Amino acid sequence: MPLPRQCQGAMMSDPVRPADDEARTLARGLMALGHAALAWTDPETGTPGISRVAFARDPEAGLLTLVSGLAPHFRALRENPDCALMLGEVGAKGDPMTHPRLMIRACAGFVAPEDPARLGIRARWLERNPKAQVYIDLPDFAFVRLTPLTALLNAGFGRAFHLTPQDL
Amino acid sequence: MPLPRQCQGAMMSDPVRPADDEARTLARGLMALGHAALAWTDPETGTPGISRVAFARDPEAGLLTLVSGLAPHFRALRENPDCALMLGEVGAKGDPMTHPRLMIRACAGFVAPEDPARLGIRARWLERNPKAQVYIDLPDFAFVRLTPLTALLNAGFGRAFHLTPQDL
Repeated sequence: MPLPRQCQGAMMSDPVRPADDEARTLARGLMALGHAALAWTDPETGTPGISRVAFARDPEAGLLTLVSGLAPHFRALRENPDCALMLGEVGAKGDPMTHPRLMIRACAGFVAPEDPARLGIRARWLERNPKAQVYIDLPDFAFVRLTPLTALLNAGFGRAFHLTPQDL
Repeated sequence: MPLPRQCQGAMMSDPVRPADDEARTLARGLMALGHAALAWTDPETGTPGISRVAFARDPEAGLLTLVSGLAPHFRALRENPDCALMLGEVGAKGDPMTHPRLMIRACAGFVAPEDPARLGIRARWLERNPKAQVYIDLPDFAFVRLTPLTALLNAGFGRAFHLTPQDL
């Protein structure tokens, strides 16, 4: 049954709700995916760039990626730490726009090789992804903390939620 | 068998190759996916934003998306047409970083409701996605042409290709 006109109007004017427990649980699930799309600003042109990145929600260090010095976003994040992540896969079936995805605005901070937190970050990363052993210690690879600023969960048509850093 | 040292060195210094037929075929396959991650610049903050968008490679109009006026990238692309797309899904198995993805730097151009090309664009969009019938004619929805500028195909570890707009 369609919503009364006044309710549709209300939904149109403020379509995004505050997070509830269901939204937080869904967001945590998306953060367990192991990869994300990362939007960054190209330091040469000032225009948007995009990359796939490895991703983890580390229990101590928070949101993380591991970046190769060969990747275009390595230099971009060094010069401009503002970035945005999107997490969520689209299954084989149905409208891709109805599958949930989590968008996070974040600030990137490189973890220095001598940072005392790095050993724990490295050990937990390898637990989740043993194949990273091959490159994790190469001198041009770096862990990057992605400190969340705001987040939006789009859980399907008409189901969008604002999330705070604490919700993540 | 590992590559000789000088070959590894050569690969490191210029890891991205010009497109070949295999790369073009793979890129075309990724463009058939029906959705993409879109990176854009937030007009209020000047920082990166990211969204999932519906996507099609239209045989006449080129690369396209259909955008709702409620989506944050609608206003962003109106104010700053520079954007970047990423196409490619990660399967359930293996390292997400080895699955192919196509990154396209593009310039967004809104298709006006009175544009004579719109009728054909609309008909072909509905052929691919009949469910869009529900919203395709809503007054706040618009088709947006994504004119490619450059593209990078990452086909897995050590297999990256530059693509030109003609390759797409």
